[in-house]
Amino acid sequence: MLKEMLVRVRERHPLIHSITNYVTANDCANILLACGGSAIMADDPEEVREITGVTDGLNINLGTINTARAEAMLEAGKEANRLGHPVVFDPVGVGASEKRRYYANRLLNEVKFSLIRGNISEIKALALGQGCSGGVDAASADKISEDNIDGMAGFLQEFAKKTDAVVAITGAIDLVADAKAAYAVYNGHPMMSRITGTGCQLSALSAAYITANPETPLQAALAAICAMGVCGEIAQQRMSELDGNASYRNYIIDAVYHLQPDVLETNADYRKLR
Amino acid sequence: MLKEMLVRVRERHPLIHSITNYVTANDCANILLACGGSAIMADDPEEVREITGVTDGLNINLGTINTARAEAMLEAGKEANRLGHPVVFDPVGVGASEKRRYYANRLLNEVKFSLIRGNISEIKALALGQGCSGGVDAASADKISEDNIDGMAGFLQEFAKKTDAVVAITGAIDLVADAKAAYAVYNGHPMMSRITGTGCQLSALSAAYITANPETPLQAALAAICAMGVCGEIAQQRMSELDGNASYRNYIIDAVYHLQPDVLETNADYRKLR
Amino acid sequence: MLKEMLVRVRERHPLIHSITNYVTANDCANILLACGGSAIMADDPEEVREITGVTDGLNINLGTINTARAEAMLEAGKEANRLGHPVVFDPVGVGASEKRRYYANRLLNEVKFSLIRGNISEIKALALGQGCSGGVDAASADKISEDNIDGMAGFLQEFAKKTDAVVAITGAIDLVADAKAAYAVYNGHPMMSRITGTGCQLSALSAAYITANPETPLQAALAAICAMGVCGEIAQQRMSELDGNASYRNYIIDAVYHLQPDVLETNADYRKLR
Repeated sequence: MLKEMLVRVRERHPLIHSITNYVTANDCANILLACGGSAIMADDPEEVREITGVTDGLNINLGTINTARAEAMLEAGKEANRLGHPVVFDPVGVGASEKRRYYANRLLNEVKFSLIRGNISEIKALALGQGCSGGVDAASADKISEDNIDGMAGFLQEFAKKTDAVVAITGAIDLVADAKAAYAVYNGHPMMSRITGTGCQLSALSAAYITANPETPLQAALAAICAMGVCGEIAQQRMSELDGNASYRNYIIDAVYHLQPDVLETNADYRKLR
Repeated sequence: MLKEMLVRVRERHPLIHSITNYVTANDCANILLACGGSAIMADDPEEVREITGVTDGLNINLGTINTARAEAMLEAGKEANRLGHPVVFDPVGVGASEKRRYYANRLLNEVKFSLIRGNISEIKALALGQGCSGGVDAASADKISEDNIDGMAGFLQEFAKKTDAVVAITGAIDLVADAKAAYAVYNGHPMMSRITGTGCQLSALSAAYITANPETPLQAALAAICAMGVCGEIAQQRMSELDGNASYRNYIIDAVYHLQPDVLETNADYRKLR
Repeated sequence: MLKEMLVRVRERHPLIHSITNYVTANDCANILLACGGSAIMADDPEEVREITGVTDGLNINLGTINTARAEAMLEAGKEANRLGHPVVFDPVGVGASEKRRYYANRLLNEVKFSLIRGNISEIKALALGQGCSGGVDAASADKISEDNIDGMAGFLQEFAKKTDAVVAITGAIDLVADAKAAYAVYNGHPMMSRITGTGCQLSALSAAYITANPETPLQAALAAICAMGVCGEIAQQRMSELDGNASYRNYIIDAVYHLQPDVLETNADYRKLR
């Protein structure tokens, strides 16, 4: 089921318009190229409609937001909707400021998303309209475990129903759901949280998967989440004792570059919750 | 002929003011340091004249353009012209939006460039004033082959004459020309297109070569294009089976760091077309 | 003495709000994660107070300044002062433009810094209010040697007294001082100057060290400076003959990731000057 998702990314070479933060933009572009897609980053409100028009899908990321970039997100998102392009939303640090909440709400109200992906604190802040501490990282009080996983899946499905989107929470255990089904993913490695922007990269990667597989966004998102985790595991096996988070960052993107559909299928570790 | 170009980069340590996109700025700075130059990035219209004044050459790149950054390009370009500094122009994605076309035209009209470098779609859009699809990558219909290379060289020379600049189209085969001569370069590796910003990096590198060799801009641009391609080949030989585009990016910059003038001369694969 | 500084970074996981340039933001975030801290980058004047409020310390860097980002620095700096958070100031290229001098002066007047760190040209420009050539790199005429080191330490202590901050000049020999004591640090490797943003990275790292050790800012800054130098040495030992500045960049961050407190203590090469 998952391997076909990757096969189509490689066949269709989706070109993704990313309006993202300047901290991880380079890594997002390289992971898009690694998976078989490609990237254009443009964030001026005056040109984003045209840029969206020459691309296949859109990836919106709230990190290092400012007014112009946020307005560009709204413009591009509406144009992508009009053109029928998939749109991914990564609400980086949405609980951390009034401005991020304001634009996140406008984006949710004015743009139809194919996928909304964040850490648990971000998705909670988005779904419940609450602030959070801890900046762009998940608060430690917020943690998915086998004890609360079924409740969280229900919460996620409620939000998926409300937004008519696939919604994903990623962390030590990942959850991804639409209104009808929910999955848990157990791939990945704790050290991935020591690299800046693995979440941003996963959102970019998911945009490529969903854009190449627009008929099956849940499966595509599940495949992208498993792919990122499997690549985190493959990259980890490659680490020498001197390698740290900088080399690990490179190895993960390298692994995405080489990921074979069968390896994804075989190593994906997920189960259906609902 | 080419090796002297590199020798002078290492002797003169050109400091390049780059007004470039935030996606590949870090790689551009590191490749400038790798080749023997150095970098300052500043893009505020209020300070770019002064910044240009303390540097040796200017590199302008249209990626992630906005109004302020574009106005800064015009300011810095005019000041560089007044000071006699070489200026390189990389019209990233110029066919993709009206705004990019507008500022590209103003830049062409108001600034004298030493080198204009892009992929074939960008140079065509710039020379012919037309839009293009495919965002920042060359459209597949636009491709230089041995069948059309002579016509393309003529087209390039026309544009070089009109702009009084060296003009380069880079891709699987690269072309570089001024009004009097045209060369084809066969160095490089297809995998270079799987790294974000190899074009941006080549423009930055070319700015260093031309700034260190202002009397011979065509030879300097030819040397920089060959150097990038040769380093792409050297880096490719270093790839292990686990290395992908992230490691390849690092290896190319590493190869630029170590490139010896004799290795450039010996491995440069180019021929004079006209 | 130094190793406790690192131990506390690992225990306290300081979250650092960085308002920094887009050229080296990714490296700054990754070095913060490497040392045991974490990063949030936000530079919109409308949200920086809130962002500062959810973090533990602040890192301000003048590279790629514009008016909005500079106003954000003032807002965030004042809020950090109000909350008692340590604030680090890296006056990148302060001598290179009137705008950088203007905002640097406002920052010095309106914000109380825990640490001010730059190269010798930047610190001179800041302390003496003079311009400089050479952009973001130190002018070669400005160089600390055993001949002028005591005078420079005195100069630094004067500036430290005036600003009530720890002040550091980093280069081949590093100096760090407060009003009462001054140290010279001899760690590091000349090739570190061939990587873009090692200074920016050191400022980010110092912010983590000082935020985790707010009672002893001089010792914390000294530890961070030694740590960066020691990691530059460790990374250098790892270099193969094909590795250049791109791989070196990764290896330094990797070394920061693995740096053990005892290794820092044993390899730190510093002496008390005053």
